[in-house]
Amino acid sequence: MTKQLNIMANPLIRDRLVDFLLNEVLHVSDLCDLPEFEDYSTETFDLLLDSVRKLARGPMFETYREMNDAPAHFDGKRVITSERMKDLYPRLVELGMTNATRPKDAGGQQLPCVIMGVCAAYLSAANVSATCFATLSIGAGHLIEAFGSHILRERYMAPIYSGEWTGTMALTEPHAGSSLGDVATKALPTDGEHYLISGSKIFISGGDNSFSENIVHLALARIEGAPAGIRGISLFVVPAKRLEGTDLVDNDVTPTGTFHKMGWRALPSIALTFGEAGDCHGYLVGEPHRGMRYMFQMMNEARIGVGLHAAATALVAYEESLAYAKERPQGRALKGKADGPQVNIIEHADVRRMLLRQKAISESAFALVLICGQYMDLSRYATEAAERERAEKLLELLTPVTKTFAAEQGFESNALAVQVLGGAGYTSEYLPEAWLRDQKLNSIHEGTTGIQSLDLLARKVFGTGGASLVGFAKEIALTIEAGKSAGVEESWLKALETATADVGELSQVLGMRAMADAEAGMRHSHDYLDMFGTLVIGWVWVRLATAASRGIKNGGARADKSFYDGQLRCAQYWFANEMPRVKELARRIEVGDDSYAAMDHDSF
Amino acid sequence: MTKQLNIMANPLIRDRLVDFLLNEVLHVSDLCDLPEFEDYSTETFDLLLDSVRKLARGPMFETYREMNDAPAHFDGKRVITSERMKDLYPRLVELGMTNATRPKDAGGQQLPCVIMGVCAAYLSAANVSATCFATLSIGAGHLIEAFGSHILRERYMAPIYSGEWTGTMALTEPHAGSSLGDVATKALPTDGEHYLISGSKIFISGGDNSFSENIVHLALARIEGAPAGIRGISLFVVPAKRLEGTDLVDNDVTPTGTFHKMGWRALPSIALTFGEAGDCHGYLVGEPHRGMRYMFQMMNEARIGVGLHAAATALVAYEESLAYAKERPQGRALKGKADGPQVNIIEHADVRRMLLRQKAISESAFALVLICGQYMDLSRYATEAAERERAEKLLELLTPVTKTFAAEQGFESNALAVQVLGGAGYTSEYLPEAWLRDQKLNSIHEGTTGIQSLDLLARKVFGTGGASLVGFAKEIALTIEAGKSAGVEESWLKALETATADVGELSQVLGMRAMADAEAGMRHSHDYLDMFGTLVIGWVWVRLATAASRGIKNGGARADKSFYDGQLRCAQYWFANEMPRVKELARRIEVGDDSYAAMDHDSF
Repeated sequence: MTKQLNIMANPLIRDRLVDFLLNEVLHVSDLCDLPEFEDYSTETFDLLLDSVRKLARGPMFETYREMNDAPAHFDGKRVITSERMKDLYPRLVELGMTNATRPKDAGGQQLPCVIMGVCAAYLSAANVSATCFATLSIGAGHLIEAFGSHILRERYMAPIYSGEWTGTMALTEPHAGSSLGDVATKALPTDGEHYLISGSKIFISGGDNSFSENIVHLALARIEGAPAGIRGISLFVVPAKRLEGTDLVDNDVTPTGTFHKMGWRALPSIALTFGEAGDCHGYLVGEPHRGMRYMFQMMNEARIGVGLHAAATALVAYEESLAYAKERPQGRALKGKADGPQVNIIEHADVRRMLLRQKAISESAFALVLICGQYMDLSRYATEAAERERAEKLLELLTPVTKTFAAEQGFESNALAVQVLGGAGYTSEYLPEAWLRDQKLNSIHEGTTGIQSLDLLARKVFGTGGASLVGFAKEIALTIEAGKSAGVEESWLKALETATADVGELSQVLGMRAMADAEAGMRHSHDYLDMFGTLVIGWVWVRLATAASRGIKNGGARADKSFYDGQLRCAQYWFANEMPRVKELARRIEVGDDSYAAMDHDSF
Repeated sequence: MTKQLNIMANPLIRDRLVDFLLNEVLHVSDLCDLPEFEDYSTETFDLLLDSVRKLARGPMFETYREMNDAPAHFDGKRVITSERMKDLYPRLVELGMTNATRPKDAGGQQLPCVIMGVCAAYLSAANVSATCFATLSIGAGHLIEAFGSHILRERYMAPIYSGEWTGTMALTEPHAGSSLGDVATKALPTDGEHYLISGSKIFISGGDNSFSENIVHLALARIEGAPAGIRGISLFVVPAKRLEGTDLVDNDVTPTGTFHKMGWRALPSIALTFGEAGDCHGYLVGEPHRGMRYMFQMMNEARIGVGLHAAATALVAYEESLAYAKERPQGRALKGKADGPQVNIIEHADVRRMLLRQKAISESAFALVLICGQYMDLSRYATEAAERERAEKLLELLTPVTKTFAAEQGFESNALAVQVLGGAGYTSEYLPEAWLRDQKLNSIHEGTTGIQSLDLLARKVFGTGGASLVGFAKEIALTIEAGKSAGVEESWLKALETATADVGELSQVLGMRAMADAEAGMRHSHDYLDMFGTLVIGWVWVRLATAASRGIKNGGARADKSFYDGQLRCAQYWFANEMPRVKELARRIEVGDDSYAAMDHDSF
């Protein structure tokens, strides 16, 4: 069936929103004062963003449906990816998507993470699978750059950054899943520089493709005789083809099949076998047995990246459902005449609710991702050590929330986009159902929501003795001050203050409880993450409302007034409808219901 | 990729749960005392259920994956449905799935709706698309039975009930969607018995197939000169082939394409054109201009049916994720040694949370569907008029909740089933992702969630001047009494009582508000439905906990103790985690946030 309605071209993400976040909320021009970013200015950022928008709204988005309809597949020997990637990948490389944030001396462009975040968001909103061939590569290269030898950097990192080769992370194994300490792939030392690798990996995104000359896997393996558990795992470069002199030689890495995924269909998730013929060379990255430590140092970036994909996937669906709601006539207004003309569905209160809820979720998730991007930049390059440390600590605390809020509430947001389109939304004649399928991955990969909730409560809150919360409360206090001076609605500021105090108190109670009984202290980690995420997004909305209030005060064209009002309506919505959940969740966690914990297995 | 784990065969729905609901909660044997059901007994119910289980767990479930992977498609002229339907449909017919609840004098078997509900739930859990070819047919036949002439019943209803032909509902049109008053298909009177029909319909489930001899569409159309809006719409029988004497003659009904749906892939949703060649005969059902009224009289049944599909889709996924969690080793217990053996993931608190949440949602949704089934039976056949009326009123009130709770919370439940399986859950090597896609339809068809919320608040609550709520409060009071005598946890009974009072008070406030300003009174209809649904499910859990407490008191085998404990844990979970939302939602609705209502279109 062909499309029934010719709705407005999807902007993916609105430029005005990006401009607002970068310039009015985050003041990214300040970053250009740092020596490492001195080559950049808001003008050069804009030039880059212009090119990215053209690529995203053009070839990337134009190929999304086709690539979604004809997923990458396994031909029995190799994985066949879309022909379109042969054109798209070089374009992504040309825009720096395989090296932008890396330092110049490593062959990168030293672009602030926050700007790269915006670029990746446009591209992911357009075509998340195609984009991730590049962002997975930059992640793999980054690991070699950070921990690998000079030789590994030259031989295996440089061709990734330059876009000749692609890179992957090969972590998961069939029996281990989230439990990486159980990795069983073996690394046997040899007389040469290399180890002999043998084992099986699954769920390797981009683990094979038909457009790049070579693929470099960053693989976890266990050196013979290593200690059990996560302290015995090492990191290796395991290329599909290895360099011998200047020759590329087959390295005994065998794709054995693809998984059929519900979304992300252009990026194959594959199973790989290393060393079927006993000739798979792996090159140790850094020191033995430190593989998990290295991976963890990349974890924040990877998880913020998931939050970014999730926010982008929610944003593009919001834009599509909004355009549809503005153009689709159906039914009458509540006070309208039964025989009058139909109104567009944006007139119906419940459709407006679904639209504003999507906006409130997706735009705040995106803002939070960019806030984290800015913390990444400051944690690396801020002039003062105290400022670097402050940014680092906030980033640590906010990472599990940024990933999970965007993934979980993003999924709800994407479901609402389908719902706005009604029956049409359930069909693949329209795109929202594809985005809903894409979104579901984000609560699973790079650590499930359950893992994030343990990370937040055990590691980030209990693990810092609550210091992380104290640090965040200081940020919130500054935000409230700024909000006051900008004239932000008093009741929102008060609610943010109260919610912060509630979370602090509950956290102390829980810390005491965990000391006496770890299980009881951790039992409601999911509720804790939900509660904390709701608070964090309240903080984000006050920051955005502050910038919007300033914008209105400073005057501006009619279109800007509409934009700023939209931000204030989101804040209003959040404080009326979501912030009260903080107290309710805190109460519930404190009560500590033991229903699922105490239940017999046979009673499920 | 092949399946990694050999988990237990999926029971679809556990027989013990069905036995509990039918015999210990609903006491269906009482129905057999009614004259209309005197031919039945719990033994004959069991015989039927045994046959249904065999079909559901055998051929129906065995073909689900294949039918999902190779959706029905349009060959340019006709819709090609799965070859398997040629075997499955006669089996469904043999079990009475095309006429079971219809009266004997109409060719049916006069089976109680509540028993039919259980049959349909097993079959839908196994293969919802395949099942619905039959349940859509019974719905179409029922309309002719209720409102059609003797001739129409003989010629077009009888072959549907006997399973020779299938039936559909042809309501939606491209420009009208949920707004049926805007139907534009034309019916031109002729000198003969028939009208000439012309127009286009979309989203016609089962609108064509390649296994039945004929398809009878129940179509809404407007007789020339009819009043505008819903008061000008008539109902017609429009067969794909019409009977002329004993011959079947092509009736100018042309399939023009299928919609590609995200789920329900074996049941084609198609577009049809009537009267392309000016020779499409339609036969008026009942009187002119009363089509919408007739449809509305079938609406409860259709909507409860959607709730049933939704509950079944959540139940089967719960069973699958539970079996997986019991068999899948990964990670260590919180207090376990890091180098000890892995535990099965059901040991992890957050996995248990996800399982209990699924159980609490899916089993209560199913119970509510069966409660409504029982009200249907009583509303038709109870001996006392007062009893019939009581059942009818409760059914009216509970219908939008039954549909929506199962569809919306069911979607969350199905997402949790995917999440329990982690990365595996995102692949089609396992079935939960398919059920998640199936589930999304249920918040959309037979009236979207938005429509249900308007129906509940405007029609069922305000429209009865609150009498429906008073009636329901009486039922709740009886439930609380029974709970007390069975020794159900006092705090749950108290919470149910308080929540009932809160909803009552809020409804009065809202009624006053709506009289002054309809928009303001209806603005939070979605929150109202959410709140009311939470209360209703609290009521359901007290009913189930009461029966479970009685069961424990009466003794019983070890397995039964486990089963009953499971019911009590669900009740505990609901009252600890969900019931507090009733007060919070009531508060929020009373405050009446106007964020989305007052927002400019340009600010979205």
